Amino acid sequence: MNVIIDLCVVPLGVGLSVSKYVAACHEIIKAAGLSCELHAYGTNIEGEWDEVFAAVKQCHERIHAMGAPRITTTIKAGTRTDREQTMADKVNSVKEKLA
Amino acid sequence: MNVIIDLCVVPLGVGLSVSKYVAACHEIIKAAGLSCELHAYGTNIEGEWDEVFAAVKQCHERIHAMGAPRITTTIKAGTRTDREQTMADKVNSVKEKLA
Amino acid sequence: MNVIIDLCVVPLGVGLSVSKYVAACHEIIKAAGLSCELHAYGTNIEGEWDEVFAAVKQCHERIHAMGAPRITTTIKAGTRTDREQTMADKVNSVKEKLA
Amino acid sequence: MNVIIDLCVVPLGVGLSVSKYVAACHEIIKAAGLSCELHAYGTNIEGEWDEVFAAVKQCHERIHAMGAPRITTTIKAGTRTDREQTMADKVNSVKEKLA
Repeated sequence: MNVIIDLCVVPLGVGLSVSKYVAACHEIIKAAGLSCELHAYGTNIEGEWDEVFAAVKQCHERIHAMGAPRITTTIKAGTRTDREQTMADKVNSVKEKLA
Repeated sequence: MNVIIDLCVVPLGVGLSVSKYVAACHEIIKAAGLSCELHAYGTNIEGEWDEVFAAVKQCHERIHAMGAPRITTTIKAGTRTDREQTMADKVNSVKEKLA
Repeated sequence: MNVIIDLCVVPLGVGLSVSKYVAACHEIIKAAGLSCELHAYGTNIEGEWDEVFAAVKQCHERIHAMGAPRITTTIKAGTRTDREQTMADKVNSVKEKLA
Repeated sequence: MNVIIDLCVVPLGVGLSVSKYVAACHEIIKAAGLSCELHAYGTNIEGEWDEVFAAVKQCHERIHAMGAPRITTTIKAGTRTDREQTMADKVNSVKEKLA
């Protein structure tokens, strides 16, 4: 089962800047061979369900290991069985309507 | 790694009522032996990370099998390494401040 | 337009405990005369759109005034035009399917 | 008070394709003079709190007017008082760490 997710990890107890934790997650996701796109309020990832969620778990483990004692994460996750759809397809589908 | 999540599954393409899909998820979560609490905009679940997310995946599989060709889900997921905290602890902690 | 929301405010830069900020929000919502229900990963609120979102804005203002320099909030917001539905209706609708 | 949000509107009862509703929201946001960036799982918007949330309300009104009897929306909303930060700043801050 393929999934597209939007991942937004928020470490608590480590001050105001979260970018180094987001960057660490980005590296985990790339190392897992998953497609991802960074945006201003999260990271979109697509791939096989188990691989995507294994990467999300690794992100939590890594952020804790980097010193954050608490993490709250928001995930949107989309699956569909009617047809295949990539992240690029989703954006293009909206852009066509805007054109 | 223990996790508390808030799960909100939204099946698309099956009309306006989503309660039977939410009920199906509830049964999956209970069958997995996980603690859960239903609320007006989702279901809170606590347990070991792998067990909780295995249940989330099962929810997607079940809802697709029930006929929904598309699902969009929102998950909040919290982990902490400083101390153990249950769902009840979280609610009680706020209620003490309100008392 | 009536709305039911799930509100989860996360103050950054104030340590690990967020319960006093959640309690402050709860008081704002009650003072605004809105129905709300606390759960383990947020607070559900129902009411007229403008009143609900005015309360959400007040929560951000109050939490900043309490000393948090950064806040990240997750909101789920549901509206429907086919029929009226309260938070209790939503929960009951699932519970009937479970019974 | 400035805010950056991530907006993801999901109309129910109108089938599987949501792109035309997302496009309609995009036009509302642009017409309101707000900066926005489309991504694969939502739209990021930045601006003054009241203007941003007025646009979100307009999106719900428009989508209902387009025929969707039910909408469930997920919003992430970030405010900070320590310094100004744009959507581009947030992305650049992560990219610098990745470089």
